[in-house]
Parts: sequence; C-alpha cells; structure tokens
Amino acid sequence: MKEPFFFAVAAVTIDGFIARFPGHKSDWTSKEDKAHLHKMEKAADVLLLGRASFEVAKKKLSKKNCLVLSRKVNGIRKKTKNLTFLNPKSVDVKKFVKDCGYKKICVLGGRAAYNYCLKKNLLDEIFVTIEPIVFGKGIPMFDSAVKTKTFTLVLAKKLNAKGTLLLHYKKK
Amino acid sequence: MKEPFFFAVAAVTIDGFIARFPGHKSDWTSKEDKAHLHKMEKAADVLLLGRASFEVAKKKLSKKNCLVLSRKVNGIRKKTKNLTFLNPKSVDVKKFVKDCGYKKICVLGGRAAYNYCLKKNLLDEIFVTIEPIVFGKGIPMFDSAVKTKTFTLVLAKKLNAKGTLLLHYKKK
Repeated sequence: MKEPFFFAVAAVTIDGFIARFPGHKSDWTSKEDKAHLHKMEKAADVLLLGRASFEVAKKKLSKKNCLVLSRKVNGIRKKTKNLTFLNPKSVDVKKFVKDCGYKKICVLGGRAAYNYCLKKNLLDEIFVTIEPIVFGKGIPMFDSAVKTKTFTLVLAKKLNAKGTLLLHYKKK
Repeated sequence: MKEPFFFAVAAVTIDGFIARFPGHKSDWTSKEDKAHLHKMEKAADVLLLGRASFEVAKKKLSKKNCLVLSRKVNGIRKKTKNLTFLNPKSVDVKKFVKDCGYKKICVLGGRAAYNYCLKKNLLDEIFVTIEPIVFGKGIPMFDSAVKTKTFTLVLAKKLNAKGTLLLHYKKK
C-alpha cells in the first residue's frame, strides 16, 4: 500500500510567527489565505490537528474527518463517526492513518501538531502563507530542533494586492 | 533634510529562524543570498549591526562604514575612521545617523539590532531571503512584541533552482 501523504498548511507573519500567543485566533490572515486553507482541507481525506486548534475551529470542522492529538486521552478515542482523539505519546499516528485507509492528511497545526509531524519526519509538503505583517514576537511554527531538513520550492504565488504570498515546498 | 532610510536584510529558514543558536554562523545560506547581501551592503552608506554579528564578520567589513550597537560602550565611541560603537540605551541612533549625514542604512542584524529598529519604528523596508530548509527551532528575527506592523510586498524573486526566495517588503 502506498504511504500516506502528509502536508502541513500554515499562515505566518514576515517574522515567521503562526500566532502572537497560545490561543490567538487567526483573525489576522487574509480572506485569500482562508480560501486557500479551505481548498487544502477539501483536498484531504482527514485533518490532523492539536486539541487547542480543534477547540477553536470545532463548529467549522464538524463535518470533516478529524484526528485530534491530545495528551489527555488514553490511546485512541473515537468520539463520533468522523472525529477521533489520539494520544501521540502512545499511538503511532502514521500507522493509525494507514489502518484507517487515509491517503491525504492535512496538518493544520498548532505548533505541537506541526512539531509531532516534523520530528516523525512525516511532512512531505509544506504550504506556508506569508501575510505581509510583523508581530515582533510570537509562536514560531516549530520548536523542536531537528537535523536541518531540506525542501524544494514548488511554487510561490502572490494571493492579493498587498502581497500575501503562498509558498509551496516539498521534501527533497 | 530628508529622513534617513533604513532597510533590514535577513536570511531565514522556512520556519522563520535567522540562526539555530546565538553565534551560529550563516554557513547555511546560499551563494545567491550572499551575493544579494553584498549588493545590499554596497548600496548602503553605512551598515548597522550588533556587536556579536560584527565580531563574526569583522574582517569582511573592515573597509565599510559600520555602526555597531553595543551595551558595553559608554555612549558613542569612534574606533577608526569608519567604525563607531554606539550604546543604544543612551544614543539615539537615528539622530546620530542624521548628524553623520548617512542617508541609506543597511541593518544587518542580529536579533537585537533588528529589534532596536523595529521598536523605534525605523524599518522602511525589509529584505528577507527564505532558504528552503527547516531548523525546527532557533532564533526568530524579532523578539519584542509590537503593535502589528503592516508592510507591502514589493517583489518576490526566486534566486536559484532549489528555490531560495528573496522577498522585498516596504512599510505601508
């Protein structure tokens, strides 16, 4: 069976932050980025995200297949037909995804979910939208040092007049 | 007299880091970025940088006009004809630059120098080169929260085949 394909989607500032503080909603991203995000979600078989990110977007995601990473659950906990909570400390997410037959996994963040995938070397592609603003301080996309991982730029696309930029990278 | 024009030049990873750790040399940036950096330095009347960054690049910069920010000096200390140390706690860098007649100031970093300019609202333009790699953890460009600062993308240019990307922003 073909390996599942993981792609991360993130919006960042010029200075590389995905949020100002934990729980900061993405009220600073452009409508063009939101449209891109929806397209990415639609293209996936399942969305992978952390518990805090899920709580924020719960309603919007209620009809999607979601895997929510949470350290508060014991192993695997199926909540509804399309919502499962997983403890990344005890569950091999990749294996679980394969067992479910999911082929395209969209990693929505936050930082802990991005990190899990980075450390497990799961990220086949990364889509980064750079909004043309600066926070000065905030939460970076990752925070676990890895051996330098190399990607190739597939596409850089300007999404609007102010210069929101969509960058698409794939693992080298 | 026209106001001095400040532009910051930085190389970052996809995940927004300017270095892995304090003192990390830029051995991870592409030769195309280095060429861009030299062009930027040449276009400036003076280079503004922190003491640690200066120490690393000292030899290379010996013939350039340099203003080095250091908390260890008392006010202003002229070391040679083209090298001055300034204490940003007691010296108004913008006023000093104007008094010297410098018009184009290239801000080379590191983080403390970028931050000083961000907080003082000096950055007219930012040139960010994104190398297609991920560190996972490191030093972000800034680390002092500011009210969101808005920029406009002037140019996005691919510098090489692997996809090193030069982004040019100006203050809105």
